[in-house]
Amino acid sequence: MNSQSPAVQDHYPDDFAHCYGCGRLNTNGLHVKSAWEGDEVVARFQPQPHHIAVPGFVYGGLLASLVDCHAMATAAAWSEREAGRTIGQGAMPRYVTASLSVNYLAPTPLGPELELRARVRDFKKYRSIVEVSILVQGTKAVQGEVVAVRIPEAMGGGGTGAKPSP
Amino acid sequence: MNSQSPAVQDHYPDDFAHCYGCGRLNTNGLHVKSAWEGDEVVARFQPQPHHIAVPGFVYGGLLASLVDCHAMATAAAWSEREAGRTIGQGAMPRYVTASLSVNYLAPTPLGPELELRARVRDFKKYRSIVEVSILVQGTKAVQGEVVAVRIPEAMGGGGTGAKPSP
Repeated sequence: MNSQSPAVQDHYPDDFAHCYGCGRLNTNGLHVKSAWEGDEVVARFQPQPHHIAVPGFVYGGLLASLVDCHAMATAAAWSEREAGRTIGQGAMPRYVTASLSVNYLAPTPLGPELELRARVRDFKKYRSIVEVSILVQGTKAVQGEVVAVRIPEAMGGGGTGAKPSP
Repeated sequence: MNSQSPAVQDHYPDDFAHCYGCGRLNTNGLHVKSAWEGDEVVARFQPQPHHIAVPGFVYGGLLASLVDCHAMATAAAWSEREAGRTIGQGAMPRYVTASLSVNYLAPTPLGPELELRARVRDFKKYRSIVEVSILVQGTKAVQGEVVAVRIPEAMGGGGTGAKPSP
C-alpha cells in the first residue's frame, strides 16, 4: 500500500457531503473515499453480495456510480493541486457530473475488492475531463470517462476554505 | 396512464433475477420494472431521500443505474417483439451492458417520480443499441445510450421459454 493523502470526501463542505455515492453524512450510502497515491487519485471499494448483476458478477450500475463519485473527487483533488493546496487544507471544491461514459471491458467478478485509479486528462478550472479505471486483482475491467463541472463558490461549492500555499 | 404490458423483469429466468437494479429476487435492490407502452418501453421510479447528490437533486449514479437496467429490459422486449412474442409468453432473454453513456442535461430534482422511456435504435439479435430518456414532470433531464449484449441461451440467458407466435 502506498502512502495516501486524506480522503477528498472527508473535506467536502458539510452541505455537500450527503451524496449517496460518497457523502460521509449519507447513512445509507456507499461512502467512496478517494485519495492521492503518487500522481493518481485512488479509491478502493468492497462490493456487497447484493451488488450483483448476473450470478458471480458486479452490478454495472454500481460500477458506474463508483466511476462517477471517484471522478468528481479526482477533479476536486486536481483543482486543489493546481491551486497549490493539498487535501485537508480547507473545504474541497465540489464538482457535479455533466456526462458519464463507461465501457465494461470484462465482467467484473463479485467478491474481490475493487481498485479505482483516476487522472484528469483535460483540466480547466470549471470543467475537467477525468479518466477512471476499475481494476480487479490487477486486471482492468472498466474504463470510464467523466466530464466534471465545478459548482461555483457562490453556490457553496467549497474551495474557499484555504489560502493558496506560499 | 396508458395500458401496459407485463414487466420484462417479472419474466427473466430465476437465475438472472437477482440484479441490484432490477432483479425481482434482490431484496435490497431498486426493482426497476419496464413494460411496453405503445411503441416505447417505459419505467417509473420513485427516488428515495437518500438517493441524493447535492441538496435537492437526484444522485447521478442512481440515474445511470436506472438507464442501465431499463436499457437491458428494452433490448429484451425488442428482441422478443422481433421474434413475434409478447412479454409473458416465456422467459425473457437476458442482456448485459457492454457500454453506458449518460448525459445529464439538467439537474434532476429529488422528489417527483421519474419516467424512463426507451427504444432500440439499432437492433441485432446479439447486440442492440438502446436510447433512454429520463423525464421529470415531463421535462427531459437525462439522455442515455447503452450497448446491450445478449447472454447466449446456452449460458441460461433465457429466450427459450416460448415458441414463436403463429
